[in-house]
Amino acid sequence: MPVNAELTLTTTDDAAAQKSVAALDSTKVRLERVCTAREVTSKVGPRSFLHAGPPIRLDQIPGPMRGAIIGGLLFEGEAKDVAEAEAIIDGGDIEISPCHDAGGLGAMAGIITPNMPVAVARSDRHTTFAPLNEGTDGAVRYGSYDDKTLARLRWMSTDMVAVLDEAVQGGEPIDLVDLIAEGLRRGDECHNRLIATTANLIVRFAPSFIRSKRSDAAEKVAAFMAGNGHFALPFAISMAKALTLAAADVSGSPVVTAMSANGREFGIRVSGTGDRWFVAPSPIGEPKLVPGARIEDITPTMGDSMISETAGFGAFAMTAAPAIMSFVGGTAEQAKGFVDEMRSICAGTSSRFLIPVEEHRGAPVGIDVHKVRETGIAPVINNGMAHRLPGHGRIGAGITRVPIEPFLAASEALSAGARS
Amino acid sequence: MPVNAELTLTTTDDAAAQKSVAALDSTKVRLERVCTAREVTSKVGPRSFLHAGPPIRLDQIPGPMRGAIIGGLLFEGEAKDVAEAEAIIDGGDIEISPCHDAGGLGAMAGIITPNMPVAVARSDRHTTFAPLNEGTDGAVRYGSYDDKTLARLRWMSTDMVAVLDEAVQGGEPIDLVDLIAEGLRRGDECHNRLIATTANLIVRFAPSFIRSKRSDAAEKVAAFMAGNGHFALPFAISMAKALTLAAADVSGSPVVTAMSANGREFGIRVSGTGDRWFVAPSPIGEPKLVPGARIEDITPTMGDSMISETAGFGAFAMTAAPAIMSFVGGTAEQAKGFVDEMRSICAGTSSRFLIPVEEHRGAPVGIDVHKVRETGIAPVINNGMAHRLPGHGRIGAGITRVPIEPFLAASEALSAGARS
Repeated sequence: MPVNAELTLTTTDDAAAQKSVAALDSTKVRLERVCTAREVTSKVGPRSFLHAGPPIRLDQIPGPMRGAIIGGLLFEGEAKDVAEAEAIIDGGDIEISPCHDAGGLGAMAGIITPNMPVAVARSDRHTTFAPLNEGTDGAVRYGSYDDKTLARLRWMSTDMVAVLDEAVQGGEPIDLVDLIAEGLRRGDECHNRLIATTANLIVRFAPSFIRSKRSDAAEKVAAFMAGNGHFALPFAISMAKALTLAAADVSGSPVVTAMSANGREFGIRVSGTGDRWFVAPSPIGEPKLVPGARIEDITPTMGDSMISETAGFGAFAMTAAPAIMSFVGGTAEQAKGFVDEMRSICAGTSSRFLIPVEEHRGAPVGIDVHKVRETGIAPVINNGMAHRLPGHGRIGAGITRVPIEPFLAASEALSAGARS
Repeated sequence: MPVNAELTLTTTDDAAAQKSVAALDSTKVRLERVCTAREVTSKVGPRSFLHAGPPIRLDQIPGPMRGAIIGGLLFEGEAKDVAEAEAIIDGGDIEISPCHDAGGLGAMAGIITPNMPVAVARSDRHTTFAPLNEGTDGAVRYGSYDDKTLARLRWMSTDMVAVLDEAVQGGEPIDLVDLIAEGLRRGDECHNRLIATTANLIVRFAPSFIRSKRSDAAEKVAAFMAGNGHFALPFAISMAKALTLAAADVSGSPVVTAMSANGREFGIRVSGTGDRWFVAPSPIGEPKLVPGARIEDITPTMGDSMISETAGFGAFAMTAAPAIMSFVGGTAEQAKGFVDEMRSICAGTSSRFLIPVEEHRGAPVGIDVHKVRETGIAPVINNGMAHRLPGHGRIGAGITRVPIEPFLAASEALSAGARS
């Protein structure tokens, strides 16, 4: 990529960048509650759903997002069968808007409907949320809407919410930044590997589960969590959203506050440019597919969970999680290369997300769009992969290099703003 | 060290070594029960205690072992106060014998009395056991015998045993080799860092804890485990003992089946030389002391838990646990050096204890006394450090190079045997 050092020198606002980094690196976030989405945001309704990524028109949504909306309409009782749900979508009788605009986040398709169960995080200034993780054996976020998936979701939105919220309200407060920092010490990068962090959540909830009058439900919740190594993901990303919100809206700051994709477009928001999305076509990357899956069946990158990397963990702390590399396809040696690269495009180093194998050095934090422009290095993320058709679910995982164009455009916009 | 390649070529029995390695690497071990020591061995009695390390005379025991015996006599009701306990010891009115001879193991002082709570492991051929871990805030194994320590031990031997054994009997079988292998993927080396493995045990026990009629006790047990990052250690070392017993007694095999120390002497047993101990004075190593502790206050290396390294984890898998290095004093880079060194003295590579950061390469397994002799490299272990006086408890942890002399002597004895 061409480097224009003179322009960069003119326009980079180090003080603004450091203000954003300081917010990312110091904001405290606790687990607030577990509830249904409608209890935490007014931006959902029976025919108003949230979705992952930058804005997208209903007639443009990719297959798994369509599958997830079908699932949502069935789950909410707005449609009695798939045909009715499809008619609602095709008739435009439903509104969709980005999770990010509601202070929420959804992994993969990111469809959030009023009664879906969410984990809620809270900082001094912001409340954020993300849907509880359904596992990978059929999941609305991957576009599944079969009976088993919907039955599980109903159970999660009732019994599981009751058991988990009882644990949150009755237990010691859970510092979500600490939870993720501890995960990095236990071999998780906390975006696609969260097995030790999920175990830690079970440990934190266990006293309440044991005390609970809802013994049967609590036992089922504990067993479900134990069998779902991604269960801690919504807790991690709602925390990350609270960090990035704290870093947002700093005048002149080139620090990225959101990376996100809807399966058509990948987009970023930058602190100094507020809510504006800078977009490019969603990438496919080099996924490791599940047996039998074909690369041509894949939906391009989709989901809000890359807020992990935006906040300084996930692929940005991949050296903390060498065991993930065989899951996403790669080597521990490559992980080191990725983290080193990310250091060259970040404005800071985390004092909280430390990487043991790097002698407890902090992970790179605060992607600086000017540095991306200077180096020509775009961020990498760890992500899941959905089939391109509704109802076909998960087909892989991988390490994806996101498109550089949105970063270049944001850098240019900030520079133009500084010049004007 | 001098190398005598000719002698080695004459005497090394590769087939025998590989037979021992195969046993170390293939034996299955499950968690059998949690109970009191007298329920699993007849080698304990009111005045017959087990101790860590090779045999030692009662009038030779180091301070923390004396403290632990005092604690044991008080715990068993054999002495009504410390003075009475000391009189029993000084009068020789108690017998002590090595844990190893009872198929058991004790961390640090390793004193096991009839009513102490133990975790019991079982392979096809052997039953092994080790005392439940009391934590580091006063512990009999570190020589403490204050009221708080004894009250906790009483609770552990009653309520905790009941709750845990209920979980073991009522839950899915726990494969202890898998538990430790998973720990290596979660940043534990499973000798001095077991925090993720302990969390995993809580996860495995949680359904039973939730179902238990003993809710109050179960909640207390879960909380105690959550606060004690070494809780999984006896589960790990009783497993390791079962592995090393399977590797023992192979004619001509130079593979080490026990490393152990009693605070005076460090000793090893070797497969081809049966129950014979080869000993040298216990080393002190380069400990990382707790604040305020002095090097001159330390008890030389003591304990049976270095069976971890003997079985192919602990310091031998230290690269799996970079976060431990700041606990024992060292760097992640040093860890890599240690593991590489250990590869040069081991007869095999584990197919079960895999190290993610080494691209899932197995840990070195099966210390070969001839290789120690050839290379002049003695094994390293991660270990805890006790104060030299009774009742003063834990004062540090460290990485210790064990003495090479017992390995040389064992190699010579095997060679002499082969020649005769």
